Amino acid sequence: MPYPNEATGFMIDDQKNWQDFQKKEFKLKQFEDRDIDIAIECCGVCGSDVHTINGGWGDCPLPICVGHEVVGKAIKVGKDVKTIKVGDRVGVGAQIGADLTCNNCKADQENYCPNSIDTFGAPYKDGTISQGGYASHIRAHEYFTFKIPDALESEVAAPMLCAGVTVYSPLVRLGAGPGKKIGIVGVGGLGHFAVMFAAALGAEVYVFSHSPDKKEDALKMGAKEFVVTTGDEWYKPYNFAFDFILNTADAVHKFNMSNYFSMLKVMGRFHCVGFGDEPLPTMMAQDFAPNGCYFGASHIGNRPEMISMLDLAAKQNIKSWIEKVPISKEGCAKVVDGVANNKVRYRYVLTEYDAAFGKRD
Amino acid sequence: MPYPNEATGFMIDDQKNWQDFQKKEFKLKQFEDRDIDIAIECCGVCGSDVHTINGGWGDCPLPICVGHEVVGKAIKVGKDVKTIKVGDRVGVGAQIGADLTCNNCKADQENYCPNSIDTFGAPYKDGTISQGGYASHIRAHEYFTFKIPDALESEVAAPMLCAGVTVYSPLVRLGAGPGKKIGIVGVGGLGHFAVMFAAALGAEVYVFSHSPDKKEDALKMGAKEFVVTTGDEWYKPYNFAFDFILNTADAVHKFNMSNYFSMLKVMGRFHCVGFGDEPLPTMMAQDFAPNGCYFGASHIGNRPEMISMLDLAAKQNIKSWIEKVPISKEGCAKVVDGVANNKVRYRYVLTEYDAAFGKRD
Repeated sequence: MPYPNEATGFMIDDQKNWQDFQKKEFKLKQFEDRDIDIAIECCGVCGSDVHTINGGWGDCPLPICVGHEVVGKAIKVGKDVKTIKVGDRVGVGAQIGADLTCNNCKADQENYCPNSIDTFGAPYKDGTISQGGYASHIRAHEYFTFKIPDALESEVAAPMLCAGVTVYSPLVRLGAGPGKKIGIVGVGGLGHFAVMFAAALGAEVYVFSHSPDKKEDALKMGAKEFVVTTGDEWYKPYNFAFDFILNTADAVHKFNMSNYFSMLKVMGRFHCVGFGDEPLPTMMAQDFAPNGCYFGASHIGNRPEMISMLDLAAKQNIKSWIEKVPISKEGCAKVVDGVANNKVRYRYVLTEYDAAFGKRD
Repeated sequence: MPYPNEATGFMIDDQKNWQDFQKKEFKLKQFEDRDIDIAIECCGVCGSDVHTINGGWGDCPLPICVGHEVVGKAIKVGKDVKTIKVGDRVGVGAQIGADLTCNNCKADQENYCPNSIDTFGAPYKDGTISQGGYASHIRAHEYFTFKIPDALESEVAAPMLCAGVTVYSPLVRLGAGPGKKIGIVGVGGLGHFAVMFAAALGAEVYVFSHSPDKKEDALKMGAKEFVVTTGDEWYKPYNFAFDFILNTADAVHKFNMSNYFSMLKVMGRFHCVGFGDEPLPTMMAQDFAPNGCYFGASHIGNRPEMISMLDLAAKQNIKSWIEKVPISKEGCAKVVDGVANNKVRYRYVLTEYDAAFGKRD
């Protein structure tokens, strides 16, 4: 048992063989006074895991253990930790560090801290590389560790920690709520949360998808209408209709942006949280002029948003739509292949960690 | 004298010979009950005039008389006109009609009315084509006709009616005022108004330009700092610095957008009012993620903004920086050539209309 200085994880050695996971040990960062050690119970599988291991987003430090939708049990807490105690069920999302002193951090914008540390593949000051949740343990700073409400099962909570907050943050920042009409593009890992959270916040939700067979699911998630984005005319009934459009698809490079922009109210925003490997379609500045609209994007969410999202999910009984896969060499290969090929409805969660890593406490 | 059914203007017959102005008569639209006939006294020269006559923005109806920064004297008012009386000094900008009944119009967003009528080159219901201010007269709907405050000279007011309100509208909508730090890109017809109005509204203004020789002018206009955008490092001191950046340059296709985005605060906006003939530079959705920023644009402004801008200019003694050129075949050729080749500092105004068209009242 390598813990407490090391952990064991399913890791990738080579971006060319990105489905070839090997069980290996890796070093944990030095334990500090606000750190928490977590024995991992389950981990959601994010598109970022795939874009990282297959090189779609460029090089990464190797070997790498991905996964940033982590739920487990706190088994050790540093002496300055105030919000978590040993035995608590806790979660960690896509961010595991920040300087907590810059203007952005002081303004609850730590997800935009220039010294942010990603949950996997990022260097710590002591030289170790952060490693993710396809592993026995994770060592996380208290500020980026969240108590999971009792009402949420671990496997349901896990995908909310990245996919959930990534859509919840722009929804609340852009004012999703009663009286607002919102378009959600794409029904996948991100999109299914966007539909459920936007509806739970009280907005009227229209879903845009190129997959007609997702209609029934989208309506169950809370959509008022489901619009299939094929043919030439699909956007025409929605001229100047939406306060904003949240795009969760990563195929924006295939979009005719003027069609999407035409559906926005004056000064409305087309907001992206799906990041593909391809550049955006060619646009002119004047494409934004017919309604004075905006295109933008965001990166995960902040701590208050994470807490209020988990609270909303617990109170309104919002459940991630998941497929559980036991963690193993084969299980990891299956889930990354499934994400790469859009097979999952709507999020994989790796489970049965005790079988792979033994009881840890 | 063709008036009251026709007017005389300096017109272009062929986009290939876009500096070859001919003095011609053209038909005015049918006079309606909220229309006002204006004997034109002067007209500012806008980049749009050039993009229209030289085909940069595509085909246009020919022959065409451009110009949409018009000041003159009301010589006839329809029976339902309430805000203007014969003899008033009035102005008309880039928009001369709208349905005034749609949701956008009812929300003071008539500049985004889907049935908006441009001041020149647009068809009226009666089949006539709107013609602009390089002419003896213009017939304008009351809603798009503005009383010029006594404190503003006609030649000073004219360029505000398009260039002025085009920057004033996004400045006020994005919150320019005390405590706000704003970047203005470009010091030209639009940019010089942006600097003066942003400063007058109480914001701290930083000007970005590739022309070091405009520094002294920019500081006189009210800029706090002037930053030359050459070399590799110019943007680095302004990381996360600006509430928004208003781009007035039409050379965005040459920009490295990530450099500009890096200067925005979290959720800040890069807002374009300069529209070139070229597509925007290639961008990835993730280029917006480091600070959750937005790119957008706007189209002129609404009636309340026009009125408050003229009022601000009158009260704070804000003066357009202009070069006057007497209107004639040669004068028109000179100003469009000067705009196309960036020779003007900072706005041409065509004057001496009585010499070209005779006394009209």
